[in-house]
Amino acid sequence: MTGPRASDGARSGSADLHLVEGESGSPALLTRNPRVLMAHGGGGRLTQQLIEEMFVPAFANEHLAELHDGAVLSFDGTRIAISTDSFVVTPLFFPGGDIGDLAVNGTVNDLAMCGAVPRYLTLGLILEEGLSTETLWRVVRSIEQAARRASVSVVTGDTKVVEHGHEPGLYINTAGIGVVPEGVDVAPRRASPGDAVIVNGAIAVHGTAVMSVREGLDFETSLESDTAPLAELVAVLLSKLGSSVHVLRDPTRGGVATALNEIASSARVGIEVDERSVPVWPEVRGACEILGLDPLYVANEGKVLAIVAGDVVDAALEVIRQDPLGREAMVIGRIVDEHPGRVLLRSAVGGRRMLDLLSGEQLPRIC
Amino acid sequence: MTGPRASDGARSGSADLHLVEGESGSPALLTRNPRVLMAHGGGGRLTQQLIEEMFVPAFANEHLAELHDGAVLSFDGTRIAISTDSFVVTPLFFPGGDIGDLAVNGTVNDLAMCGAVPRYLTLGLILEEGLSTETLWRVVRSIEQAARRASVSVVTGDTKVVEHGHEPGLYINTAGIGVVPEGVDVAPRRASPGDAVIVNGAIAVHGTAVMSVREGLDFETSLESDTAPLAELVAVLLSKLGSSVHVLRDPTRGGVATALNEIASSARVGIEVDERSVPVWPEVRGACEILGLDPLYVANEGKVLAIVAGDVVDAALEVIRQDPLGREAMVIGRIVDEHPGRVLLRSAVGGRRMLDLLSGEQLPRIC
Repeated sequence: MTGPRASDGARSGSADLHLVEGESGSPALLTRNPRVLMAHGGGGRLTQQLIEEMFVPAFANEHLAELHDGAVLSFDGTRIAISTDSFVVTPLFFPGGDIGDLAVNGTVNDLAMCGAVPRYLTLGLILEEGLSTETLWRVVRSIEQAARRASVSVVTGDTKVVEHGHEPGLYINTAGIGVVPEGVDVAPRRASPGDAVIVNGAIAVHGTAVMSVREGLDFETSLESDTAPLAELVAVLLSKLGSSVHVLRDPTRGGVATALNEIASSARVGIEVDERSVPVWPEVRGACEILGLDPLYVANEGKVLAIVAGDVVDAALEVIRQDPLGREAMVIGRIVDEHPGRVLLRSAVGGRRMLDLLSGEQLPRIC
Repeated sequence: MTGPRASDGARSGSADLHLVEGESGSPALLTRNPRVLMAHGGGGRLTQQLIEEMFVPAFANEHLAELHDGAVLSFDGTRIAISTDSFVVTPLFFPGGDIGDLAVNGTVNDLAMCGAVPRYLTLGLILEEGLSTETLWRVVRSIEQAARRASVSVVTGDTKVVEHGHEPGLYINTAGIGVVPEGVDVAPRRASPGDAVIVNGAIAVHGTAVMSVREGLDFETSLESDTAPLAELVAVLLSKLGSSVHVLRDPTRGGVATALNEIASSARVGIEVDERSVPVWPEVRGACEILGLDPLYVANEGKVLAIVAGDVVDAALEVIRQDPLGREAMVIGRIVDEHPGRVLLRSAVGGRRMLDLLSGEQLPRIC
């Protein structure tokens, strides 16, 4: 072939670990969980098992092994980030957003979490027979508006139709492509003792807003999803602080606790979170109490966890707070040498406890 | 931003045509079809209406307007092709393949149809609660094997779980990235009068194999899906004939007739097909008669329509026939000046008729 080639580590890695028909090394989860559970899609422990026992061994390559929100590939020196997400949220429309803008912002944000400037999206629609075309049109317009806001173009797509369930719905898959600027090096493995963990605002808003509608609490609350594109905030942060920004992660499914656990595990570091510093709106706290949810595990769609070098914490906080999406930014924790792979919470009343991955499914079909 | 930038035509195109809440220009299809029908996903006329009335106006940009199997984007002079497809085939396993290798080959082939060398895949899984994890593992292994055969790496993914229907199933979305070598210029608009249409082998095999199982005919036939990666065949063809290869298209949903209609419409040319030259195995013809299907409209998964300049037809045929997937290659038609936008069939008995897009759904959930 005459064309340009990307780095080839991935391919050889795959060959080393390839699987063959009939081999004895079936994943242990086949006996532990003979059936797929809702929790396998919940972002917690069962999702992690699926990834670690099935996908990583099957598709072994350096990109997948990073367990990042996306993969960064090199083409002739240009670093291209790619990411994908499927969206199955119910209801399709909820206060503050819908499945359409969620599908754009979710993938745009995953690219931003790789340090990339999002550029292009693909759009895969799976529609249920009988869905109102008016509903589809509302979703399509919402996708268009979200794409415009995030400065990305939908360049190719695909539509399938399947038999309907009780209430015909739709699923959306988006994949995104972005460009990683020079000097940026953002990856979970870069979290280092001494780093600070910053969140750009109050947590648990998206999940609480969706669950409030689903549980009929929307008469008691005016909560709206925080769904928003974070690429602009991230781009400014990276342009000011460059490689002092070590890790970026959007705490979606599984919330802040799950995202920090994944980072602690990837980087083999400990993380300490100070519960009193974590911004939670009183209205969200109240709804979470009624719904029996812990805000630290509730999905966000417009939040980013930025892990930055200790010596740039103040500068980072200042930059983030200048963005409309970052006005309530707070330092909520730090990376430590102790308890590598684990996240420790210093509670408001002075206690300490491990923040673990959830075993079950706290919030099904939240995104 | 300091990073490299791709060409920006797409973005400005999008802004020109943006849609606003409450504008009166709702697509006419909302009144014509208030509900989504299976045929909206079938690849025929209703799919075309969905694309032309909803998606193209909503997401207007130069890439989408090409109506290619994917989009070709330029990053610092490197041309990157991107494509996406969702797979909802039922049953999940069928003679000759399963939803897993279909999901790899389908996207690999869409990239190849852009003239690209496929490199990376994303994998989005939507699983139904209660699906056997053993089934999932079979599909994952099949994806891995197909990816290895096609020399692509699965670099990032996402898993969601939804409530189950009667028989828990799964849907797969793949998006792919490939690199377009220098000198290659493959696009539907390049079809020109005098060009020849070549198919690499016997048609209608995939759709007939899947439908035979679904309709209980699999005891009467040993038909297996033709699902296969076409990237190698395409790469060799392009390396030998360069820009004399004008259009490549894999005739999946809607079959050869639909693919040729799309090309005729994109390029504003006429296409003539000689029915006697179209290779159809007797077994496929027999099954199609029982199932009431026209082979020209039945899905293929390992077939490519190559439209090449008239002066390289013999060379192209020779190159294609040297590939194991091209042994039965035939010239089946030609591009003409007459009846632009339409496809004419010269039938075996000497008649002529227009090959139109199907209005309904011939084969639901075939891929």
